[in-house]
Amino acid sequence: MERHIRYSDKDNALVLLDQRYLPTREDDFYCRNTQDIIYALQTMVVRGAPAIGVTAAYGCVLAAMEVAAEADWKTALAHKLEEIAEARPTAVNLRWGVERMKKLWAGNSGLDNAALVALWLAEARVVHREDIEINRRMGAHGATVISDGDTIMTHCNAGALATAGYGTALGVVRGAIDAGRKGITVIANETRPFLQGARLTAYELKEDDIPVTVACDNACGLLMRRGMVQKVVVGADRVAANGDAVNKIGTYSVALLAREHGVPFYVAAPLSTIDRNMPDGDSTPIEDRTPREVTHVGETQITPDGVPVYNFAFDATPSELIAGIITEVGVLRAPYKESIAKAFKEAGIE
Amino acid sequence: MERHIRYSDKDNALVLLDQRYLPTREDDFYCRNTQDIIYALQTMVVRGAPAIGVTAAYGCVLAAMEVAAEADWKTALAHKLEEIAEARPTAVNLRWGVERMKKLWAGNSGLDNAALVALWLAEARVVHREDIEINRRMGAHGATVISDGDTIMTHCNAGALATAGYGTALGVVRGAIDAGRKGITVIANETRPFLQGARLTAYELKEDDIPVTVACDNACGLLMRRGMVQKVVVGADRVAANGDAVNKIGTYSVALLAREHGVPFYVAAPLSTIDRNMPDGDSTPIEDRTPREVTHVGETQITPDGVPVYNFAFDATPSELIAGIITEVGVLRAPYKESIAKAFKEAGIE
Repeated sequence: MERHIRYSDKDNALVLLDQRYLPTREDDFYCRNTQDIIYALQTMVVRGAPAIGVTAAYGCVLAAMEVAAEADWKTALAHKLEEIAEARPTAVNLRWGVERMKKLWAGNSGLDNAALVALWLAEARVVHREDIEINRRMGAHGATVISDGDTIMTHCNAGALATAGYGTALGVVRGAIDAGRKGITVIANETRPFLQGARLTAYELKEDDIPVTVACDNACGLLMRRGMVQKVVVGADRVAANGDAVNKIGTYSVALLAREHGVPFYVAAPLSTIDRNMPDGDSTPIEDRTPREVTHVGETQITPDGVPVYNFAFDATPSELIAGIITEVGVLRAPYKESIAKAFKEAGIE
Repeated sequence: MERHIRYSDKDNALVLLDQRYLPTREDDFYCRNTQDIIYALQTMVVRGAPAIGVTAAYGCVLAAMEVAAEADWKTALAHKLEEIAEARPTAVNLRWGVERMKKLWAGNSGLDNAALVALWLAEARVVHREDIEINRRMGAHGATVISDGDTIMTHCNAGALATAGYGTALGVVRGAIDAGRKGITVIANETRPFLQGARLTAYELKEDDIPVTVACDNACGLLMRRGMVQKVVVGADRVAANGDAVNKIGTYSVALLAREHGVPFYVAAPLSTIDRNMPDGDSTPIEDRTPREVTHVGETQITPDGVPVYNFAFDATPSELIAGIITEVGVLRAPYKESIAKAFKEAGIE
């Protein structure tokens, strides 16, 4: 499952598997310029913090090509990079991807446009490949907290489709199976409103022959009360400096239920998702998305005309509810402020 | 909003507003025999514990008419009554409605078929009218726990549509407004999978010009964390002897979040919903419904072919999470075993 983000040299385009129409349609979406990239990010053709980071990196390349003919291409490019970075507010990887390209440019500011495009395309490919490698390392570390026979509940899709490949939360599932754990099964919360669990997690696990059952988000409590869940593993769009995890709306409810039932709740996220400038989860901007995701499912209208809806896309899970943060450098434990700082220092990140 | 359950003498039929297609279509569904009644109950043409009780009472009338020509009509009728009582397993009001008619028959066992039909039809109309009166009394008691400016979260539809009229949980909202409370607003959890909140609660509150906003079930945690919810009021399909409330799947999550955020969580239910033969919520049978409610919304398929789903329809909220049970005789408080026994005694119920 790594064909969902690919760069086509022939077309000068980033080709994305359109996640709006899975699992019933497998369409490609071609991004040829900044506008396409922003549209793909905002409408969730592509979603998931790490996948957003990779898309942002390729988006910079397309932006650089787009301004090639302009006299003051550098100023035009700087504007376009900012537009990409602001396409969605919550996932920190979006800005992280753009900043990485900007830094590379700053260190090579004498390059002409064509040379910058070539340098950035090479770098985007590094970001792309690194993300898969990071996820595989995360999976190997995550495997240590998974036991034979575990049923793992996950919320949203933090899988191959949410990353360059392998996945973060589902990377832990894959890592456990790769490490020889037997009898691993997954419960995918359907994850209203965009239904990433029902549509995407179920799709990619089925493709990999990993047993998965879909349940409505409302079923979490009953399933835990009946002892049908041994671990929860979710991804994150941003982890704050204190370990609070901002992730898909509803994650907080799952975490609270997990504590109530003694089910360990893990967050799987690369260091690039940890934002040490954000003190806690409640400070993180929460995206408020289009009402249509709530009022309709496909073409079926489910609310009466004229009734307003809330469509906040994320919530914050307080770090007290988190048993561990699974990263590419190991499983971080509370107190998170200290373990996060240590992990960054050891990884040589400023 | 009382036209959704009506008996037509002209047609010898119970006419139900078909709740499967609200809010976008307002179709009538005619029940002319036992089979129609069972179909309507099982597919949720009509749903909600009190409405199920009323439907069951009229169903007995239709069953009696249906067997009129049979030589041993009494045995045939007894079988049909049992079929109705077993149509759905969780809502105690279904069996309660049938038992009420059976008792009346036992006390008048010499009646011929036509006389029984007449007696039962009169009784069904009493059950019907009583339910509305009970809900209005419940609303008046419930108003005492609601303050000016409260935003009340509710799960599923425990409104006029779930009863003969006025509603249980939404009866408390109406009761508060009728008692002069100002600035009352409602957040309706959409309530996957059948979407009774998005479709039915929003529909009937909008009809009554009561301000309502729909949110995905996943949003409960964020909304409470942001202080946007002052009270939770839900209905129940069965309240156990210890006060545990069995209600629509997901209610338990809402109750747990409410406790975490200091939001009082109330259950509004008539005494007919309290089952003193059921020791606790976990002992109550939980209906496992068709996968299609989870795999599709309208005609839109949301899960991949061949992936199994869970579709448990109810969960149990432990009584420790319940601030009060609002009944037609007052607001019961913990310890519920004692307050329930006292309420039954005072109401003169065995």
